[in-house]
Amino acid sequence: MSFDDQIARWGVPPEPIKLKAGMVAFLNERVGKLHPSPQAGRTNVEVPDSRISEGVLSEFQSALSAESVTTDADARLAHSGGFSYLDIVARRGVEPKVADAVIFPTSKEDVVKLLALAEQYRLAVVPFGGGTSVVGGVRADAEVSENSDGFNGILAVAFDKFADLVGINDVDMTVTVQPGMTGPALERLLNPRGLTLGHFPQSWERASIGGYAATRSSGQASSGYGRSNEMIESLTVVTPRGEFHLGVAPGTAAGPDLRQVFIGSEGAFGFITSITLRIRRLPEVTRYEGIMFPTYESALAAFRELKQAQVKTAVLRLSDPQETATNLTMAVEGRTATALNKYLEVRKVAGGCLAIVSWEGTSAQVKADRSQTWTVFKKHRGVSLGRKVGDGWEHARYSGPYLRDVLMDQGLLVETLETATRWSNMENLRNRVYQALTDSLRAGNPDAPGPHIMSHLSHVYDTGGSLYVTVVAEVEADDPVGQWERAKQAACQAIVEAGATITHHHAVGRDHAPFLAEEIGESGVELLRSIKAQVDPAGIMNPGVLVS
Amino acid sequence: MSFDDQIARWGVPPEPIKLKAGMVAFLNERVGKLHPSPQAGRTNVEVPDSRISEGVLSEFQSALSAESVTTDADARLAHSGGFSYLDIVARRGVEPKVADAVIFPTSKEDVVKLLALAEQYRLAVVPFGGGTSVVGGVRADAEVSENSDGFNGILAVAFDKFADLVGINDVDMTVTVQPGMTGPALERLLNPRGLTLGHFPQSWERASIGGYAATRSSGQASSGYGRSNEMIESLTVVTPRGEFHLGVAPGTAAGPDLRQVFIGSEGAFGFITSITLRIRRLPEVTRYEGIMFPTYESALAAFRELKQAQVKTAVLRLSDPQETATNLTMAVEGRTATALNKYLEVRKVAGGCLAIVSWEGTSAQVKADRSQTWTVFKKHRGVSLGRKVGDGWEHARYSGPYLRDVLMDQGLLVETLETATRWSNMENLRNRVYQALTDSLRAGNPDAPGPHIMSHLSHVYDTGGSLYVTVVAEVEADDPVGQWERAKQAACQAIVEAGATITHHHAVGRDHAPFLAEEIGESGVELLRSIKAQVDPAGIMNPGVLVS
Repeated sequence: MSFDDQIARWGVPPEPIKLKAGMVAFLNERVGKLHPSPQAGRTNVEVPDSRISEGVLSEFQSALSAESVTTDADARLAHSGGFSYLDIVARRGVEPKVADAVIFPTSKEDVVKLLALAEQYRLAVVPFGGGTSVVGGVRADAEVSENSDGFNGILAVAFDKFADLVGINDVDMTVTVQPGMTGPALERLLNPRGLTLGHFPQSWERASIGGYAATRSSGQASSGYGRSNEMIESLTVVTPRGEFHLGVAPGTAAGPDLRQVFIGSEGAFGFITSITLRIRRLPEVTRYEGIMFPTYESALAAFRELKQAQVKTAVLRLSDPQETATNLTMAVEGRTATALNKYLEVRKVAGGCLAIVSWEGTSAQVKADRSQTWTVFKKHRGVSLGRKVGDGWEHARYSGPYLRDVLMDQGLLVETLETATRWSNMENLRNRVYQALTDSLRAGNPDAPGPHIMSHLSHVYDTGGSLYVTVVAEVEADDPVGQWERAKQAACQAIVEAGATITHHHAVGRDHAPFLAEEIGESGVELLRSIKAQVDPAGIMNPGVLVS
Repeated sequence: MSFDDQIARWGVPPEPIKLKAGMVAFLNERVGKLHPSPQAGRTNVEVPDSRISEGVLSEFQSALSAESVTTDADARLAHSGGFSYLDIVARRGVEPKVADAVIFPTSKEDVVKLLALAEQYRLAVVPFGGGTSVVGGVRADAEVSENSDGFNGILAVAFDKFADLVGINDVDMTVTVQPGMTGPALERLLNPRGLTLGHFPQSWERASIGGYAATRSSGQASSGYGRSNEMIESLTVVTPRGEFHLGVAPGTAAGPDLRQVFIGSEGAFGFITSITLRIRRLPEVTRYEGIMFPTYESALAAFRELKQAQVKTAVLRLSDPQETATNLTMAVEGRTATALNKYLEVRKVAGGCLAIVSWEGTSAQVKADRSQTWTVFKKHRGVSLGRKVGDGWEHARYSGPYLRDVLMDQGLLVETLETATRWSNMENLRNRVYQALTDSLRAGNPDAPGPHIMSHLSHVYDTGGSLYVTVVAEVEADDPVGQWERAKQAACQAIVEAGATITHHHAVGRDHAPFLAEEIGESGVELLRSIKAQVDPAGIMNPGVLVS
């Protein structure tokens, strides 16, 4: 991994991203001035020496293998944090937290051995799958000190080399993988056999399957395929106090579902060493469509009615007016834009909300499902923008993080956050979050036209949905870290006050941990602590996430 | 509740059940001789005196209300066990275990107070919702003794008077209820508003919503509506060490899903005091159909392909050849039977497997879903038996437990058990369970033609399904209890050896508890113990179920 392309940035985009003139004007008008701010090179980043002795590291090498451990500075830097805005800011020069060594297990046995040694030498172990956490879930951040609470060092445990296929069962329609496998690697194995997992989070290009499970991730086609936690048939978890093999059958009433204790446990209880997921046959037909609704209210009502009527869709996504305007500005300019705007006016949906819907299955299924969808959408004055708009979204579905790199290069703060709530609370939630972010960011930057805040409904359920919010603002040059910390804090506070969840699919990590008790109560936090005490009495497992 | 009609029996059937001559002949041929054995009357059942002092009981009365506590023998008998075969045998005269008092909380506050008093006086508390457990989940069975481990008495905590509607939200499509409400009571509230929960377990007429949650129950329309655990949006649980309010949003990644720790916890951790479930609109159209497949293999393949193709159905149920033959014998006789058999032969499905399928929704949805279903079924040589057969099943969907009463009156052992596994293991599982039951029951009764064993696939998933087995045998008069205990033990052993779940929807209770470690491992059992120690350190909550 090169620092410039893959550590300080999300990566090299498949197609170069150029901000069109219309987009620059839009940003100037809505956010503020652009200040070209090329990323710092590797030499600007200081990586401290490892605090773990060679003697201890050689014990890990004896137990696992010589090549399983490294203290190489670049490797440590690459495996010590995720991809939140502040993680990237840190790796662009604000002294990132860096693990003392990276260890690469290749088997369950390696994990058992490394946990035993880590406990023996009181080393914190921080898991690193794809490293795509945006909530500090894989940040090498634990107290290293000579206090009795402190650790003697931090090990990043990377699953890059524990990433093989275990097996495919196309009768049961399951696949079993090791935790480090990525989504693209899995689809490359499944697709030629006519199979798919159907899980496509925006982090898909980098994220690991173990990470899906550890964070309860949700993919863009969740409406058709469900969340990751619904896809997981069984899993093996190694903790410092024993192994768990959970999920013998597709449905069971054999007590509490202990899989759900480990799914979403973010490495705080144990490391997942094997995962069996349900898979599907690749659909014969996939059809995307763009739809414009006249107002946010009409679009919300249409989405709610569609989902509650059990109409099958795969992708179901609704941008609010702010995001719709932004996307249209980015997508079209010049005469095309004029023509489009005219069309939207004629159809009475100008200033409205853009929805993306996809249907999958046999051609009969797609035809029937699309027809049922339009029965609902017509009632709410939805207007088709055709397949092209849908296909365009599909084509650019992973582009967000690359675009963020480009906007950060222009001196902008760009971050996302997400939550979920029931239908009747959706507009209240959105208003509160927008207000909190606006107030916080304006306070530090009163002369800027921004922040620019926009959102989409990213995952839809019978009873509600997830709100995915993007914030773009001028950076406060004298305190870029504090600027976002304060804004994020204000947004989290607004979310809990609205009675919504602190996270729909990004997980808790270190960043949301202070708000967990607001959601599950002190009793809930105490219960998590007691579970952790049972399986990780020394508290070495990813300390700082969830409850520690 | 009268003893004769509702305590020693499931109840008075809506229509009298008469065994037709053909059925009697069938039983004689497949099971053995019928011995009319009318149930014992109330006077044959001895109810021991309460072991809890009046002074202690009056403290409960002071804290709750005077009418909240009773030691009436009939009330204690009615609230001290479930409806397994052995529970009924016990209440027909083999000294049932009886709680020392019944307590009727009416609010969350009552539950908080009664748990504090129970802990103070070291009384075991056994929950009683609808009392339909068939696995000893509500049996008043805990060690009462002066040992340090022993309790001073057993309280049955009945939720009959804590059974109100809290609220309906038809925007979010949720309903909130108190734990004691039954399914019929809920549907009577929802249906006039055009709403339904859609959860119809065979125990529906008696079971409580709190019981659904406590046992992870599954209804007959699970293919369309999901399991109870999938319907539960949020719940409140009172434990001896704090309250839990879980489930703020329809999707969340805020750590492990702690709802799933309490769902299926069978009263061993706490008592559920409020449940919010997702609901649906009543379908415009519901269409049932009976389908005959030529062989078990072809039918299994059809069901598997249907589910994996994401075709929507509500009920999806497949009888094996033994159950199909039994059902046809019960349903038709004389000339109708001859004509039917002729038709089945002509259509090449004689001796085959009967499936029941239903579709729900708008007429367009039902039409599309049924058409997609038949695209699959035709490939596997399914033959429609028309709506009448489907409607007939629907009409008799709750008749099983009444029929059991009638067969028990004829001196027969009748019991059911269930499990689940993935598709590739289904036939192995079925063979092993049948063999184990046959061997065990033949050993004690070598001259009988039985046992008669039959099953159906009762709940179907992408990756597998649930096998619901019915056993009918001559009673071993000298040891009726041991006879079934040995057979059940053999079946459980076969299930765990086949790698299937010890229970798909009946829960663990006291009867399956010895097998739980086979399914979730010693680590899993230890984790459950540590959770129990956290929330119920005195161990008063339904001792004996799950892990204690």
